[in-house]
Amino acid sequence: MTHTTVTVLGLGSMGSALARAFLAAGHRVTVWNRTPAKAAPLVTAGARQAASAGDAISASPLVVACLTGYDETRRVLGDVTATLAGRTLVTLNSGPPGAARETAAWAAEHGIRFLDGAVKDVPDAVGRAGTLLYYAGDATTFAEHEATLRALGGDTVRLGDEPDLAKFYESAVGATLLPVLVGFFAGAAAARERGIPVAALAPYAVRWLRMIGEVLPVFAAEIDAGDYSAGASSVDLFLAGADGDLAFLRESGIDDAWLRPLHDLVRKAAAAGHGEHSIAALTEVLGARQEAQPSRCATASSVRPAP
Amino acid sequence: MTHTTVTVLGLGSMGSALARAFLAAGHRVTVWNRTPAKAAPLVTAGARQAASAGDAISASPLVVACLTGYDETRRVLGDVTATLAGRTLVTLNSGPPGAARETAAWAAEHGIRFLDGAVKDVPDAVGRAGTLLYYAGDATTFAEHEATLRALGGDTVRLGDEPDLAKFYESAVGATLLPVLVGFFAGAAAARERGIPVAALAPYAVRWLRMIGEVLPVFAAEIDAGDYSAGASSVDLFLAGADGDLAFLRESGIDDAWLRPLHDLVRKAAAAGHGEHSIAALTEVLGARQEAQPSRCATASSVRPAP
Ligand SMILES: NC(=O)c1ccc[n+]([C@@H]2O[C@H](COP(=O)([O-])OP(=O)(O)OC[C@H]3O[C@@H](n4cnc5c(N)ncnc54)[C@H](OP(=O)(O)O)[C@@H]3O)[C@@H](O)[C@H]2O)c1
Ligand SMILES: NC(=O)c1ccc[n+]([C@@H]2O[C@H](COP(=O)([O-])OP(=O)(O)OC[C@H]3O[C@@H](n4cnc5c(N)ncnc54)[C@H](OP(=O)(O)O)[C@@H]3O)[C@@H](O)[C@H]2O)c1
Repeated sequence: MTHTTVTVLGLGSMGSALARAFLAAGHRVTVWNRTPAKAAPLVTAGARQAASAGDAISASPLVVACLTGYDETRRVLGDVTATLAGRTLVTLNSGPPGAARETAAWAAEHGIRFLDGAVKDVPDAVGRAGTLLYYAGDATTFAEHEATLRALGGDTVRLGDEPDLAKFYESAVGATLLPVLVGFFAGAAAARERGIPVAALAPYAVRWLRMIGEVLPVFAAEIDAGDYSAGASSVDLFLAGADGDLAFLRESGIDDAWLRPLHDLVRKAAAAGHGEHSIAALTEVLGARQEAQPSRCATASSVRPAP
Repeated sequence: MTHTTVTVLGLGSMGSALARAFLAAGHRVTVWNRTPAKAAPLVTAGARQAASAGDAISASPLVVACLTGYDETRRVLGDVTATLAGRTLVTLNSGPPGAARETAAWAAEHGIRFLDGAVKDVPDAVGRAGTLLYYAGDATTFAEHEATLRALGGDTVRLGDEPDLAKFYESAVGATLLPVLVGFFAGAAAARERGIPVAALAPYAVRWLRMIGEVLPVFAAEIDAGDYSAGASSVDLFLAGADGDLAFLRESGIDDAWLRPLHDLVRKAAAAGHGEHSIAALTEVLGARQEAQPSRCATASSVRPAP
């Protein structure tokens, strides 16, 4: 690996971790942060602090930005597009796929080479062999900087050309986070009501998640094939368990408002004829397109031309 | 290990797997099933088939029942309580904690020694070293049969004396299942809308669940301590992400009715002053008791003595 020059804009928790990882890999690092004081520990570690975003950018062919979001990033970079032109900008903030697409269009307009990415771990994990980062964008641009970017995590993956793919995967994969947590906290609340330490429950919950994880690829194959006939974990089985789930929460004094809409989906799948099918058939009733089908309407009025 | 005699009642997918595992461990196994034909493969494997539940029970000091639920089990055993008296009955069906308690009371009334358990895996996994089974009930009864029961799975755990603890843990730990699946299927539906194979997403989803699993013990400690001040994943952070979550589903054409009540809980936690606290503070707003706390009321009327 050749040691190159890289600029990091934004030195919050994550930006600072990124800059540290580049330094640790032996790269020359120039940093800039709106609040300059945050650069001090990095300067101690060997980074050069620039006086302005423009100065920082002009130091390197590769510019990594990790601000709060795309809006903040575009606000800072809006004044220095001429300096950025011809260089590669990599945004590593979170945000919606749409904002990543807009930023890619803006970059293209100004002749800025662009990659969007997402750090799928905590700042402390940045730089480790097992740490996952998604990237999206042009293959040539990625190939040029891949060796440098690998300093941020050994599991550095380019998902494709479309510039919003990192954010798309982040959103699609991340859709389990809040649901898992609410399910766990509901079980935890029930345990606490009963005087069972949540710490006694947690190892089983961890293990249970691992087991659920093992079946996701099976469900994925069913969804891709559109074939739900292997009904080992059937919609009807979940339907049969629904009353018990609610009874458990009620008996434990736990709010069940979060669970009822999940049961509604199970019922909807059963009503659509998926009762004996795999629970993965829920995918079919989650799509809005499916919902807008005229066959679900009492009358066909919604397909009449507007007056 | 001494080889003993065990009776298995109920030869559905799970009951048959249990009987096979006892046979594989070298025990003498007597089986009974309402539909006798299902016993054939087990008889071939060395089991003795009894003509009635009563005959089956009288063959062994240890009787394992794996019928659909507690109601079915009690219906079958109601006629043979005299034969069961003095023996140990182990129920391994699913069901609500309350039904396990009722069955324990019924067993006590008839002088039947009783353990309730739960197989935390698929029938194919029964008998393996890593397979988890929960048990609940009297320590002496469990100790007496533990070596025999270990034939069903190497990870055989007694959770405590209270007879509903296996079902309680099963319900509390299991509360993440449907939420995880719905989150995954929503992401899968979005991927499919975009033409991305769900199989491409699944490995990241598996990994993501493993990462979430790693933080559950941290959240458990926060809940047990009632201290949510370490707000690395704060309620406000989830709140800030809520609009983006919804925008992603909307843009992908995916139903979001399942997600909104989860966001409501996040908002409720923020409104209760937990904004900067760990997301584990959601536990505090999930408990019905907590909701009734006078401190949440505009006036203290609820703590005045009733008229
Ligand atoms: N921390 C994590 O665990 C983690 C994990 C994965 C992804 N991320 C993502 O990484 C990004 C950064 O997160 P973080 O944890 O580093 O956040 P943070 O600690 O709050 O830092 C935010 C950074 O953005 C800068 N900033 C915000 N608004 C600005 C503006 N208008 N002009 C100039 N600079 C501005 C801040 O500068 P000042 O110092 O001047 O305020 C700071 O450098 C976010 O999108 C986050 O979702 C974070
Ligand atoms: N399969 C799994 O993956 C799994 C995993 C963990 C836990 N469990 C639990 O294990 C239990 C059994 O599950 P399973 O998969 O083995 O179910 P199953 O294949 O449907 O078998 C049900 C068993 O119950 C018997 N039965 C039902 N009603 C009866 C009645 N009124 N009188 C007498 N016998 C009756 C059936 O007898 P017939 O053959 O005569 O119908 C059969 O032996 C359930 O509580 C289930 O939740 C299953």
